[in-house]
Amino acid sequence: MKKNYPDDGLALHTDLYQINMAESYWADNMHEQKAVFELFFRKLPFGNGYGIFAGLERCLDYLKEFHFTESDLDYLHTELGYKEDFIDYLRTVRFTGDVYSMVEGELVFPNEPIMRIESTLVEAQLVETALLNIVNYQTLIATKGSRIKQVVKDEIVMEFGSRRAHEMDAALWGARAAFIGGVESTSNVRAGKMFGIPVSGTHAHSLVQAYKSEYDAFHSYAKRHKDCVFLVDTYNTLKTGVPTAIKVAKELGDSINFIGIRLDSGDISFLSKEARKMLDKAGFTDAKIIVSNDLDEYTILNLKAQGAKVDSWGIGTKLITAYDQPALGAVYKIVSIENDKGVMEDTIKISSTTEKVTTPGQKKLYRIIDKENGKAEGDYIALHDEDPTHEVRLKMFHPVHTFVSKFVTNFEAKELHVKVIEKGQVVYENPDLKDMQQYAHDNLDLLWEEYKRSLNPEEYPVDLSQKCWDNKMRNIEEVKEMEHSFSAQNGGL
Amino acid sequence: MKKNYPDDGLALHTDLYQINMAESYWADNMHEQKAVFELFFRKLPFGNGYGIFAGLERCLDYLKEFHFTESDLDYLHTELGYKEDFIDYLRTVRFTGDVYSMVEGELVFPNEPIMRIESTLVEAQLVETALLNIVNYQTLIATKGSRIKQVVKDEIVMEFGSRRAHEMDAALWGARAAFIGGVESTSNVRAGKMFGIPVSGTHAHSLVQAYKSEYDAFHSYAKRHKDCVFLVDTYNTLKTGVPTAIKVAKELGDSINFIGIRLDSGDISFLSKEARKMLDKAGFTDAKIIVSNDLDEYTILNLKAQGAKVDSWGIGTKLITAYDQPALGAVYKIVSIENDKGVMEDTIKISSTTEKVTTPGQKKLYRIIDKENGKAEGDYIALHDEDPTHEVRLKMFHPVHTFVSKFVTNFEAKELHVKVIEKGQVVYENPDLKDMQQYAHDNLDLLWEEYKRSLNPEEYPVDLSQKCWDNKMRNIEEVKEMEHSFSAQNGGL
Repeated sequence: MKKNYPDDGLALHTDLYQINMAESYWADNMHEQKAVFELFFRKLPFGNGYGIFAGLERCLDYLKEFHFTESDLDYLHTELGYKEDFIDYLRTVRFTGDVYSMVEGELVFPNEPIMRIESTLVEAQLVETALLNIVNYQTLIATKGSRIKQVVKDEIVMEFGSRRAHEMDAALWGARAAFIGGVESTSNVRAGKMFGIPVSGTHAHSLVQAYKSEYDAFHSYAKRHKDCVFLVDTYNTLKTGVPTAIKVAKELGDSINFIGIRLDSGDISFLSKEARKMLDKAGFTDAKIIVSNDLDEYTILNLKAQGAKVDSWGIGTKLITAYDQPALGAVYKIVSIENDKGVMEDTIKISSTTEKVTTPGQKKLYRIIDKENGKAEGDYIALHDEDPTHEVRLKMFHPVHTFVSKFVTNFEAKELHVKVIEKGQVVYENPDLKDMQQYAHDNLDLLWEEYKRSLNPEEYPVDLSQKCWDNKMRNIEEVKEMEHSFSAQNGGL
Repeated sequence: MKKNYPDDGLALHTDLYQINMAESYWADNMHEQKAVFELFFRKLPFGNGYGIFAGLERCLDYLKEFHFTESDLDYLHTELGYKEDFIDYLRTVRFTGDVYSMVEGELVFPNEPIMRIESTLVEAQLVETALLNIVNYQTLIATKGSRIKQVVKDEIVMEFGSRRAHEMDAALWGARAAFIGGVESTSNVRAGKMFGIPVSGTHAHSLVQAYKSEYDAFHSYAKRHKDCVFLVDTYNTLKTGVPTAIKVAKELGDSINFIGIRLDSGDISFLSKEARKMLDKAGFTDAKIIVSNDLDEYTILNLKAQGAKVDSWGIGTKLITAYDQPALGAVYKIVSIENDKGVMEDTIKISSTTEKVTTPGQKKLYRIIDKENGKAEGDYIALHDEDPTHEVRLKMFHPVHTFVSKFVTNFEAKELHVKVIEKGQVVYENPDLKDMQQYAHDNLDLLWEEYKRSLNPEEYPVDLSQKCWDNKMRNIEEVKEMEHSFSAQNGGL
């Protein structure tokens, strides 16, 4: 390839097959048929009992700006060989549909639609890859952040992972997602600037090395940074690091605000307990101990069980990469499409893996909240023309093990989707990020503790309405019928 | 935070502590002291026997453009409270140093400097986070791509992971890194446009659903896409999918170029073998079978062992997220700094974890190649004033187990660092991406097969020169001395 194309748009941030399908739809004059796609995942990450949705703001920015630039079109034509008539059509494409979505910070569970895209077939198809790319990562990290915060409880969690993030966007948007999940701050200054997240950080080993001695380094650092935390493990944590921090803090006295020390290597349990004793003995009982060193919720649980004396936890790699399960498998599936008579028809994807069979039809999603105790009984997926909000008694049953069922009364059915885009225009205003974090936090009160356990939590119920279930069964039957008649006609093939 | 800052620069894509340290260096008039930092990792990912370096191009773009924008400075001042004198100084900061780096596609091993940054203390410090963020991810994915290609061998590998990548940059730069590692193509059209990577893709299940029947879908798709691959698992792979593909291919005959079929679910081993038989029986012996479905090098090895009939492998999640080890732990350490007499002094970071003790001093890196068999004997790290290229007999010894040593004669000592930035100006021209891929491919011929085994490979030697080793020991002694005298002076603390 000779040409050097500018990176001037995101419409090509998609899989090639989306463009191929768009071409077929357009060539067969199907491109303006109305279609409904749903975005959802099938399995919670990390064995967690719930997910926290994040990514909407970036999805909205992307959809709002969606168009092919001239350099995109030139590339598609010149380098990939798409024909001019199709290129001319692509030039006109914008996202003109409606989008219904959960809000950021919402609790999310497997197999429930996070977003519902109702648009033309071609538009809904073209935006699939980017929406998944955004939602998969941000929801994964918001969930990981929340999970870590659940274990840490009342102490502070700081996100420190930029250097190990998967390139720059992940560092930036990961910091934001982690904050939504409940993490208090980030070390990434750009994320602080862009999103208003509190930023935190002290100094590195290189400062101590540059000043030749810990004493000089701490002393100089404190003069310019009155609220100071000293990193004490450049040489020997207990023999020189902590004693030097104490010495400098004593010498500078009230001229500084000695916040505390940071441990970044060695046995955090042992070192934090010893350092605590040394700080207390020196009269610095308020000094904080901040730790970091490849931590995650498992090591934190263990360190806490051993009585480690920690006030703040800096979490890097394991949070920003979701190290123990670095992908959320959200998918984007067509559930309904307009037929040539202008009527919406449901559609299904069959699979020999039963969990992969999609649930057809335009659907709405409700959280069923017990009015008495304020706890969520489960989520309820109904067809779009149903209205469970006025029902007195709701039958909920497990969508796979259908014999598991219960009746719910005295409930509130809270609809979880908000119309965020109408006819291509964004009609939703993003709340302040702090409010999203608060929303996620408050939402957790809806859940019984059993769903929030980090190991082997109870499975939160996500149920289908009877009508939705019957519709799915009917669609499966139709496909079976189709397979049967195909085999009958092509028996000898 | 009320202000809405634009995302107009990358200088704040850094950890807060870098800014704090910059402030201290500047306040103490140390900011223009010359300093040398090295970027390296300590452990290869995936248990692989080698790594493939990627990320240089983006690092160069970042360093070339490095400056704080007015909105950056306003944020630092207004929101974070940095004082105006320091802000005025930051306004003037550019990267004015020298950078020595491996080239992209180079074989890389633990504990050897990938990049050496020689600049002012403040400049070298401020760029740490972004350089690590870029190199860690891109090198991880180039290595994963190469590892997968080693297992696949002569068949085709396609990168399909955009939807599971960690946000957009990872999808884009990950596609590029995977290509350098040996992957043949990507599904990400933007990566194709930006970097000239071949793009590949067919159609999705939604196309089949939109056309109501596989027959209509395949037929219509083939009319517009003459070089066609049909996705055959929307309903029932062997009962309807493959037979329909064959039926359409037969009907359209020479009017299309029936490339083959794609399997995206179910048991790839069984289905590919059955599909192969059906295609062959129908006379389509040249038709290809393309597979995808959560594949990685382990499943590929297994499928091959079972005799799966596969011509092309589409790898998504497991490649683009480096699923089984989603972070490379590269670090960036100061090794030398100018003292107040203008002389460079080496510096060391000690740790109770022996692998974390840094190797002080400005160093050069050589690959020692046996002139007789053309194979690499190991890599050799020497101090900058040594020149092993003219040595006749080289002693190489293991940097941890020093009793393991060997003498090498009749060798070429190839220097692995190229000066890529001189006094802040980029003096290196990035080769064509295809050439980087070829370079990585040819490099692998330097390695004995033992280093390339995907499970438990031999450890490739990365050795220190005697002088480099002695220098390290001297630095360790100095720190011990310092600790000792500190304890003696502050015994009662």
